Amino acid sequence: MDLFYVLLVLLVVTRAFAEVAERLAQPALVGELIAGIALGAVVASFPGTFPALSGLGDNEVFITVTDLGMFFLMLFAGVEMQPHKIFERSAGSLVVALGGMVVPLGLGMALGWMFLPESDLRLAQCLFLGVALAITAVPATVRILTDLGQLNSKIGQTIVSAAVFDDILSLMLLAWLTGIIGAAEPPGLAEFAVLSGKIVLFFAVTAFIGLFVFPWGGRFMHRLRVPELEMSAVLVGAFAFAVLAEMLGLHFIVGAFMAGLYFGQKTITAESHERVRQAISAMTFGFLAPIFFASIGFNLDFAPIAEAPLFLALLILFAFLGKIAGAGAGARLFGFSPGESAAIGVGMSPRGAVELVIAGIALKAGLFADGTGVVTQLFSAVILMSVVTTVVSPIILKRVFGSAGKTGNGGGIWFPE
Amino acid sequence: MDLFYVLLVLLVVTRAFAEVAERLAQPALVGELIAGIALGAVVASFPGTFPALSGLGDNEVFITVTDLGMFFLMLFAGVEMQPHKIFERSAGSLVVALGGMVVPLGLGMALGWMFLPESDLRLAQCLFLGVALAITAVPATVRILTDLGQLNSKIGQTIVSAAVFDDILSLMLLAWLTGIIGAAEPPGLAEFAVLSGKIVLFFAVTAFIGLFVFPWGGRFMHRLRVPELEMSAVLVGAFAFAVLAEMLGLHFIVGAFMAGLYFGQKTITAESHERVRQAISAMTFGFLAPIFFASIGFNLDFAPIAEAPLFLALLILFAFLGKIAGAGAGARLFGFSPGESAAIGVGMSPRGAVELVIAGIALKAGLFADGTGVVTQLFSAVILMSVVTTVVSPIILKRVFGSAGKTGNGGGIWFPE
Repeated sequence: MDLFYVLLVLLVVTRAFAEVAERLAQPALVGELIAGIALGAVVASFPGTFPALSGLGDNEVFITVTDLGMFFLMLFAGVEMQPHKIFERSAGSLVVALGGMVVPLGLGMALGWMFLPESDLRLAQCLFLGVALAITAVPATVRILTDLGQLNSKIGQTIVSAAVFDDILSLMLLAWLTGIIGAAEPPGLAEFAVLSGKIVLFFAVTAFIGLFVFPWGGRFMHRLRVPELEMSAVLVGAFAFAVLAEMLGLHFIVGAFMAGLYFGQKTITAESHERVRQAISAMTFGFLAPIFFASIGFNLDFAPIAEAPLFLALLILFAFLGKIAGAGAGARLFGFSPGESAAIGVGMSPRGAVELVIAGIALKAGLFADGTGVVTQLFSAVILMSVVTTVVSPIILKRVFGSAGKTGNGGGIWFPE
Repeated sequence: MDLFYVLLVLLVVTRAFAEVAERLAQPALVGELIAGIALGAVVASFPGTFPALSGLGDNEVFITVTDLGMFFLMLFAGVEMQPHKIFERSAGSLVVALGGMVVPLGLGMALGWMFLPESDLRLAQCLFLGVALAITAVPATVRILTDLGQLNSKIGQTIVSAAVFDDILSLMLLAWLTGIIGAAEPPGLAEFAVLSGKIVLFFAVTAFIGLFVFPWGGRFMHRLRVPELEMSAVLVGAFAFAVLAEMLGLHFIVGAFMAGLYFGQKTITAESHERVRQAISAMTFGFLAPIFFASIGFNLDFAPIAEAPLFLALLILFAFLGKIAGAGAGARLFGFSPGESAAIGVGMSPRGAVELVIAGIALKAGLFADGTGVVTQLFSAVILMSVVTTVVSPIILKRVFGSAGKTGNGGGIWFPE
């Protein structure tokens, strides 16, 4: 791969589209997503003209760059958020997450039941549609809330922590689902218990390390002499949590987020915290995140629009409806106003990055092999839905939050306005 | 590749060794290089025990991470240095670079003439040895001077700008050398003129962009709204210069360095400059540079110590002697004291990263194929020489500069001492 050429083109195009989005009073993320879709369409339309840019979606090096983008985005979210507020809201967030998972899961399975032809894989395909609607793309949500200056508001904290719960529950479902596809008989309660045990273990281990080892490390660090050690220390913690998450069957983004969360101002000095926060912010929002978000729309296949228009339309409709009804109902229970509850539902609607991971796993497991009718369009339809929800949600949220917190993160420091 | 696992292990080991080096009053770089050698030796000794860590040197993803390390290190050097001082010293630096190139080139060719057996490739192999001794690893030099707090001293500026000249001249020689290996007859003066023209073109284009487009871009940026735009702008400039350098036959590090150099405080506000400088420093010295330096020693082959001890010893001796005599003589001409001149020679001795690139190109071009005697050890001996010079130079320089500028970059901010 012509690394620097690819990075140059992607960074220029995404930042230009992001600037246009900002001028149209939309979050920068919307521009970056559309930049990726546009670039992907141009490259696909002129095959051979941009050899370095075609096939990027399957390029191991490019995937590493976008993985690092996801990693830093989640680390930033953890560092930026105040953990005690997250934990204070955890009961409410759990209810929001459950509502925001069960309703879309049911809607997705019902949609599959209506449209998918009879086959051995039909149950698994229906469950896949359910999971595809149940998840929330935490990195996209974090970016939207950061762009809107709402990451640390009551609504923002509820959305992010519910989204994290949501993804953990969805990943459990996904593990069960891939078990169904592969095995002769579906995995039973025992396997589900093991999976749950691993997740509990992950949170117990990270809590122990975060609460006891991190503060000790912070005090120890003051006696060390290596330059730029604070950044190394944060990254070592985040890499370790990411590895642990992957070992225990979770996505690495959960590890990066938890590491950032425990890396509070009590762990190191406020000055170190601010330095690290600024460096991660610059590297994430100025470099890796735009490239990561562009990659989401890069390999879009528009065939479902012509081949399965009704199915696609219902899928997108249910994607919003499920979250607004499910997560919104949970939020109402915990005292949010109807407007705020709807906003929380919309805020949990983006399926962006995580959907690509889940759909990719299902594709590799052979869920769409030998399909007929709508099944041939299932993969592309789900990807289209994930991009549409990720592009539309911030546009709706921007209207909801109005003009509060206009500029993105860090922007205030050097825009003279 | 298990990305996060590999990054975790490398970051923990390099930082631990760097801390030990600092405690032994050595630059952190020395610890990171030795960490790489030690880790490589352990992995090689227990094959199968660390599957994720073996074969890293050939892994495309890992090479990308280390390339990014080199890129950010050179960008940092450019951002950190004051361009007018570099250009003020350019006449002196050019003489230092010429002396530091011609003498090692002669010594290397003489060494080849003495030791290498007669063959069709003998002339090319001798020339390769000359080039191998003529180069200076600018990234290693930058890191050493940063560790010692000497990057912006008169000696530091002379070393870095001479090293950049040196690498450009060596890359020209290398292009000529690979021409010799591939073609039936050696390329003539015309090819050399084309190569020189390309290099002049590179500096003309980057100077025009740096002096006229960058300041215009800096003023324009103040009217834009995208978050973290300053970091994107610097990276776009650096990626563009890196791509241009590669298009014109130069190494990308030259582009990254020049982009950093033109990105002065006049281009954007002093506040933006400081923010970007800090973010690049944290990401480079806290994350990418340690991994990059560890990778240099990762695939070390110690066979030449047993197979060709005299050749290896003379190669390492000539590596220091050539630079101290050649670059030192140039420095003396421009008014540096004998001690300072020797320090400049030692400062230009590390062959680190760039040598790996050059030796790799020669290996791929078939320069060591079907060799007998010393030729079978030539590649490994050159790599050993490059690691030894990179480890030993900072240890010598540390003594020369004494206790001045003890801590590394940025460290002063949060070490309470």
